[in-house]
Amino acid sequence: MIIVPEREIAGLISAEECFEAVEAVFAAMARGEAWNFPVVREAIGHADALYGFKSGFDRAGLVLGLKSGGYWPGNMARGLTNHQSTVVLFDPDTGQARALVGGNLLTALRTAAASAVSIRHLARKDARVLGMVGAGHQSAFQLRAAVRERDFEKVVGWNYHPEMLPRLAETAAELGLPFEAVSLEELGAKADVIVTITSSFEPQLLDAHVRPGTHLACMGTDTKGKQEVDPTILGRARVFTDEVAQSVSIGEAQHAVAAGLIGGGDITQIGAVIAGLAPGRQSADEITLFDGTGVGLQDLAVAARAVEIARARGVAVEIDF
Amino acid sequence: MIIVPEREIAGLISAEECFEAVEAVFAAMARGEAWNFPVVREAIGHADALYGFKSGFDRAGLVLGLKSGGYWPGNMARGLTNHQSTVVLFDPDTGQARALVGGNLLTALRTAAASAVSIRHLARKDARVLGMVGAGHQSAFQLRAAVRERDFEKVVGWNYHPEMLPRLAETAAELGLPFEAVSLEELGAKADVIVTITSSFEPQLLDAHVRPGTHLACMGTDTKGKQEVDPTILGRARVFTDEVAQSVSIGEAQHAVAAGLIGGGDITQIGAVIAGLAPGRQSADEITLFDGTGVGLQDLAVAARAVEIARARGVAVEIDF
Repeated sequence: MIIVPEREIAGLISAEECFEAVEAVFAAMARGEAWNFPVVREAIGHADALYGFKSGFDRAGLVLGLKSGGYWPGNMARGLTNHQSTVVLFDPDTGQARALVGGNLLTALRTAAASAVSIRHLARKDARVLGMVGAGHQSAFQLRAAVRERDFEKVVGWNYHPEMLPRLAETAAELGLPFEAVSLEELGAKADVIVTITSSFEPQLLDAHVRPGTHLACMGTDTKGKQEVDPTILGRARVFTDEVAQSVSIGEAQHAVAAGLIGGGDITQIGAVIAGLAPGRQSADEITLFDGTGVGLQDLAVAARAVEIARARGVAVEIDF
Repeated sequence: MIIVPEREIAGLISAEECFEAVEAVFAAMARGEAWNFPVVREAIGHADALYGFKSGFDRAGLVLGLKSGGYWPGNMARGLTNHQSTVVLFDPDTGQARALVGGNLLTALRTAAASAVSIRHLARKDARVLGMVGAGHQSAFQLRAAVRERDFEKVVGWNYHPEMLPRLAETAAELGLPFEAVSLEELGAKADVIVTITSSFEPQLLDAHVRPGTHLACMGTDTKGKQEVDPTILGRARVFTDEVAQSVSIGEAQHAVAAGLIGGGDITQIGAVIAGLAPGRQSADEITLFDGTGVGLQDLAVAARAVEIARARGVAVEIDF
């Protein structure tokens, strides 16, 4: 039994390794070689916590397991992260527990990896301006990952609470990029790629904001009721997602589907694009939109990679379990 | 983070400690202070394995977590147990992983504890003959637990494959009790308490076999389609269970409910009897039947107790996670 404590994750797995792990499992999902199991998510009636698990099996990569955890809103006051995650991997040949991996940073990295992978496969090659909608904790991860995929020359950003924008400005500076705080109108007019990462329950980015040729990665909507963008955008975009079943039910597409603007059949698994089973962007003018809902297999993929690296570097704790 | 490896479980938690842990959580369930989350159970399409998890939260005992694992039919040939289980406990105040506990032996012990607790609360005080239907691996655990609850003077047993009966004979001998291999007719005629622990998909024990005043603990049916006893027995018995939702869907009661002999409203949570919220046995002549389906909270309860004891005895491995 291998333990990779949370404190070992930082610096262990590179952005590129996360991207590759997420890409590979998305492709395996599209080939029917990997699947997510039903999600459990419960309000536990204690500490206002939302707790649950995402789980799945990647037969191609032979990765079986679950990510357990949830949201404890009182943690911040205790000096802990509100989102707490732990990944447990099992040997698919025997069912024995194989690894326990701290999942907090990995969750941030795999979410960032998903939007980066969507940019890799769907954004225009000549994209130069990156727009960020949302400036919370996760936004820095999304920004750092996104800039690896195109030769961005500038970052423009908007947040409902403008006082949080320094996070984006500082992260852009760390990446050597100029940053400009803008209105949503300006953001849509300037950005070639837009990443939304908010916890909004109503559309922020409107249809009129979005130019032809834009790639959007909508990463904030993972629950019924949440919403980041005007559903009309999905009606005129080509829509991609990690998992169609989640996209239409708890993802950004839930609203466009409910409004009858698109159906599940209009949504392409990004894994199909990665695996060469479906086309990605087909013209410089079309809008592509990736609805990143977050699947358990993403967590398992990056955790399995982290375990490999930790073992190779000798930082994994091995215990006789 | 506390690790209690599988090898430490044997001898760690006593039968009585298991019974108390299971009793307490059953009562908490009945008081509405503990609940199981939806069960995930999947055929993974590899190694013929069935994988999944049971999970829940006991707000009274502040135990949150899951048991993960499943059934790997090829394990025996590798010298491993076919059923593989691991329990992960979380701190309900923060969501942080608190303990990882080997769950193989604990699963056997908690299943045995449930039928013993049912005997404690439902069998006649003057029960003297214990009937065992089933002689597989788990039957020895059920037998050892059952005899702690009444002054049994004899064990009678039946198994579809008679060549497995020596397991029951040897376990009875270990407990200082005479054992007799009998037909199902004789078993029903002689036994005051009957524990069924088979993986049958059709009724073994028939209505005509069962005398008034008998207590049955049906412990084998945990899946749609499995069946151990004639549903008519449930029609004339007072029926108890660990969780009504599981009893009517995947437990022994599924067949009596499907046949219209009883409804969910006729089934009493055993926790209600333990908590003093519902009567148990009401006469020496009635048949009581406990439909033990197996809930995640049982696993968490015995695992949490095992962690306490392991820490107190200094056999838990503590790691900085």
